[in-house]
Amino acid sequence: MPAALQNDQFLRACLRQPTDHTPLWLMRQAGRYLPEYNATRARAGSFMGLATNPAYATEVTLQPLERYALDAAILFSDILTVPDAMGLGLSFAQGEGPRFAKPVRDEAAVNALAVPDMDKLRYVFDAVTSIRKALNGRVPLIGFSGSPWTLACYMVEGAGSDDYRLVKSMLYARPDLMHRILAINADSVAAYLNAQIDAGAQAVMVFDSWGGVLADGAFQRFSLEYTRRVVAKLQRTKDGQRIPCIVFTKGGGLWLEEIAACGADVVGLDWTVNLGAARAKVGSRVALQGNLDPNVLFAPPEAVAREAIAVLDSFGPPQRADGSWDGHVFNLGHGISQFTPPEHVSALVEAVHSHSRRLRAAGK
Amino acid sequence: MPAALQNDQFLRACLRQPTDHTPLWLMRQAGRYLPEYNATRARAGSFMGLATNPAYATEVTLQPLERYALDAAILFSDILTVPDAMGLGLSFAQGEGPRFAKPVRDEAAVNALAVPDMDKLRYVFDAVTSIRKALNGRVPLIGFSGSPWTLACYMVEGAGSDDYRLVKSMLYARPDLMHRILAINADSVAAYLNAQIDAGAQAVMVFDSWGGVLADGAFQRFSLEYTRRVVAKLQRTKDGQRIPCIVFTKGGGLWLEEIAACGADVVGLDWTVNLGAARAKVGSRVALQGNLDPNVLFAPPEAVAREAIAVLDSFGPPQRADGSWDGHVFNLGHGISQFTPPEHVSALVEAVHSHSRRLRAAGK
Repeated sequence: MPAALQNDQFLRACLRQPTDHTPLWLMRQAGRYLPEYNATRARAGSFMGLATNPAYATEVTLQPLERYALDAAILFSDILTVPDAMGLGLSFAQGEGPRFAKPVRDEAAVNALAVPDMDKLRYVFDAVTSIRKALNGRVPLIGFSGSPWTLACYMVEGAGSDDYRLVKSMLYARPDLMHRILAINADSVAAYLNAQIDAGAQAVMVFDSWGGVLADGAFQRFSLEYTRRVVAKLQRTKDGQRIPCIVFTKGGGLWLEEIAACGADVVGLDWTVNLGAARAKVGSRVALQGNLDPNVLFAPPEAVAREAIAVLDSFGPPQRADGSWDGHVFNLGHGISQFTPPEHVSALVEAVHSHSRRLRAAGK
Repeated sequence: MPAALQNDQFLRACLRQPTDHTPLWLMRQAGRYLPEYNATRARAGSFMGLATNPAYATEVTLQPLERYALDAAILFSDILTVPDAMGLGLSFAQGEGPRFAKPVRDEAAVNALAVPDMDKLRYVFDAVTSIRKALNGRVPLIGFSGSPWTLACYMVEGAGSDDYRLVKSMLYARPDLMHRILAINADSVAAYLNAQIDAGAQAVMVFDSWGGVLADGAFQRFSLEYTRRVVAKLQRTKDGQRIPCIVFTKGGGLWLEEIAACGADVVGLDWTVNLGAARAKVGSRVALQGNLDPNVLFAPPEAVAREAIAVLDSFGPPQRADGSWDGHVFNLGHGISQFTPPEHVSALVEAVHSHSRRLRAAGK
């Protein structure tokens, strides 16, 4: 029997229920800006050594919670574990991004793809179980995956890309192959997230990190359609609790209303979106997560507080005039930079918690 | 006395006047995908050797017009000539992007900035005069500059950037310094574009290539406000002809209505924007330019034609039911890739011209 949750503000905001303050967590909150993370990573020997070892993954997942009063934990892992389990051979060279030894570039490679045996991802599910135990009810744990399209970008390009030339060439020249990859990815991601939920994830997030590079029309057919398939297959309750699902499309602001209709409980927004305008459009149907520019964290603490307050004020008091609640989960609009001064994050957390309490008091 | 213009379709579309077909040109149409460009560049020795020599600049500007029935020429130059003239020391290392020897990173460096002597940019104005002469009225010539914000990004970062950490750190920590840079840039860009118009540019374009990386709110204050200042200072007629001004903010789709109100005649759009929706919002006030994903050009010619037709159909027949005209200039949503097969561009030009004539016939 898992420990009772001591801080459920994050889950409540996701489900558009009343909250005492605006909960916050930070994408990539367990990461290289923290000296203690770098120490653990050094012991693990490599990023994959860290990510595939449940004890290490538990240790680094909890590190930011020791420093900051964050309202959620997120599984320490990588968005590319699924294609790695498909046999594409993921590695992280020193100082570089991810790379696949066997990128998917032709019809034969596409035909060889299949939903991976979830046993190959056991280390992830074991980490979820271990983290839940270590959290002991402190805050909820978020599981995650890359979106079908974002995984396809890496699978075809074989690495990060500036122009997405290879994956878009396949998309425009051989849409049949692209749809086949995406269908397999959607089934894989759904199975992967459901297994994380079984292991104890209390919310799940789909990172459509590269949806925003697609053309209007192509985004709907090649990214959003497959995210929708994933969401439709998710187990949405566990032990009587609703498991919120967050969908975040970086650069997806133009498609907000379509994304908000994909079945997710929460839509993540980057900093280009006006949060107040987004709330007016879709806030009565989904909660919103975001959307501070992570570069704000390089400015002095008073500027960090000022910009955080501007984000909260843009959303406004979450309780509506009719007494119902809209949901806002504070976050950055992208992962926190490795160059962030850790003490600036303290200023952010303090500003979000205190100002959001003032907003609620003023809104009454 | 300059030669009379034989093809004014581009200027007419910019000014929302009747056209026989949808005019097109391609950002970076004189570039590395053309073998003849690479041959000239090899003779010039370097990119700056090419850009600073009016004879070479004229030669490469006209090259794409020999191959394709494009409806406009664009000055061959670089967006960073203005900060180079400020004394920051622009160079292009082999296989890399631009780099400044003296980036602007502190208060002393900002205080040392001033609007450059336009005589240092004489090579650009000489190129404009030379190209106009060589064009001999074939198609109009477009001059251009980077936007104040986009120039500031390079000036502070010292080179291209993944995260814009340095320039955004200054923006959030020392907005006073950033505003000072932007004011100087706006005055410089206005003087630069006016000198291009004096030399013979028949339209001008402001490339706000990095406006889309800014947060909502910051975009309006640090990018759009200074683009507006530039547009307000432009000479808008020459020899009795209106000089259209195009503003292109890559990633600016969310701010379309604000950008359309900046005083420009034409707003450039990238491929993430739904062209039909954009026309419905602002098409009666400005012409629109764009917006094919340049990666479409890697697909076979039939796919190129199909996607080009989809863009034209999204805009729809430019003549409205009341007989008035909206303006569409076909373009890519970003510069053409150096890896583009040149014969695919032929398919694009053919598809845009023939389908847009069909659209006009069907619309009657």
